[in-house]
Amino acid sequence: MILVTNDDGIEAKGIRSLVEMVKPYGDVVVVAPYRVHSGKSHAITVEIPIRYNLLKQYENVKVYGCTGTPVDSVKLAFSAILPRRPDLIVSGINHGSNASVSVVYSGTMGAVIEGCINDIPSVGFSLLDFDPDADFSAAIHYGQNIIEHVMEDGLPARTCLNVNVPPVAQEQVRGIRVCRQARGVWREEFEKRLDPRKGEYYWLTGYFENHENGATDTDEWALENNFVSVVPIQVDFTDYDAIESLKRIQND
Amino acid sequence: MILVTNDDGIEAKGIRSLVEMVKPYGDVVVVAPYRVHSGKSHAITVEIPIRYNLLKQYENVKVYGCTGTPVDSVKLAFSAILPRRPDLIVSGINHGSNASVSVVYSGTMGAVIEGCINDIPSVGFSLLDFDPDADFSAAIHYGQNIIEHVMEDGLPARTCLNVNVPPVAQEQVRGIRVCRQARGVWREEFEKRLDPRKGEYYWLTGYFENHENGATDTDEWALENNFVSVVPIQVDFTDYDAIESLKRIQND
Repeated sequence: MILVTNDDGIEAKGIRSLVEMVKPYGDVVVVAPYRVHSGKSHAITVEIPIRYNLLKQYENVKVYGCTGTPVDSVKLAFSAILPRRPDLIVSGINHGSNASVSVVYSGTMGAVIEGCINDIPSVGFSLLDFDPDADFSAAIHYGQNIIEHVMEDGLPARTCLNVNVPPVAQEQVRGIRVCRQARGVWREEFEKRLDPRKGEYYWLTGYFENHENGATDTDEWALENNFVSVVPIQVDFTDYDAIESLKRIQND
Repeated sequence: MILVTNDDGIEAKGIRSLVEMVKPYGDVVVVAPYRVHSGKSHAITVEIPIRYNLLKQYENVKVYGCTGTPVDSVKLAFSAILPRRPDLIVSGINHGSNASVSVVYSGTMGAVIEGCINDIPSVGFSLLDFDPDADFSAAIHYGQNIIEHVMEDGLPARTCLNVNVPPVAQEQVRGIRVCRQARGVWREEFEKRLDPRKGEYYWLTGYFENHENGATDTDEWALENNFVSVVPIQVDFTDYDAIESLKRIQND
């Protein structure tokens, strides 16, 4: 049984493409937010209750909508919807990149990390194309390669995958690269506007700044060179290299 | 200049205690959510605009409220409020633990990680006490020790700190331990209820399950033994150890 979720909402073309991708490999249960939850990271809903409904059922697919976030959807699936633990969790296909530091903000990857915390092989897919009608055929093709590897060999303990696909036709994709998260930062430029009562409000905008200097082992390099990038992501955020030097803080 | 934020909202006792903690070390600018944003992780607001207002100003402290998340507050401070980059970012003092895997869900630590992505020394503080009127004196005392170290020596590049304080009187605290994030998971139990029209809704509840087996180098161990825990947190989520073994996926 394969659990499918996303952060673009249950009606996005990306999640329908993801269902097509994984349908050949087992029964599929979709539990995903009703509406868009971009940038929701690993957020959970604690101040209001959440609800879910079965929306449709066809072939080997059941589709549930959830009022919560992507991570809520995974938690609710485990706790209230699925008859047993899923064999695999997939999230996406996101409309837009989740490479480099975007993994930190991504609701798509929030759901994947939640699966990983619960020791279930989990993979997030993103296509570098924001078009609601984007062409997901390369993502489906390479995604199936990756799914087959994961279903056959599993993943290392406490590791999940962040897969990004370049916005080119399938025949232009040069293959898959397993790589590291590029260093970079989103530079924000809040756009100030005035409401009809002259009150100021701000829209978040910004651009990605790549801090790598030509390194060829990063996800950003792979994508710029038309490779599918696969970054193994861990759920232990400890910076082990820093522990020794920081022991001076202990004062003993 | 020190930027202060939190996820319990601008009125929480925790953030007022944090201002007291850092006020001796420089000018303080508070930019924090108006209302509670627990469990918001690294969420950003992209679908609606956000606003902020100067709420009060006294001694060397300015306090701004923001309608967004903790991470929005940091981004807005950088982009629209602060006259220059802050020397330090502190977040909290959270009412409740952010040890072990809770770092992933924490809005307090979301703000800290955002500071770290922007190369500013950043520290998150949490007290293991949900009481709105909790006693923050031990947190202030040990927090000042840690702040002094960070202001003097800085932090390693791309590393921030997750500080948790046990819920005991200051004289019972045994000192500071620099440690790693304990392995564990939140086991969810959604509580099903019926609304007045008989519709089902679910409240997220759960309990933390520690997956360590007596290891003494974790934050959970330190806290159980009345030490203040300090975990260095990194913003590169790559699992470097997994890259080689996963290269089989590349098919080349």
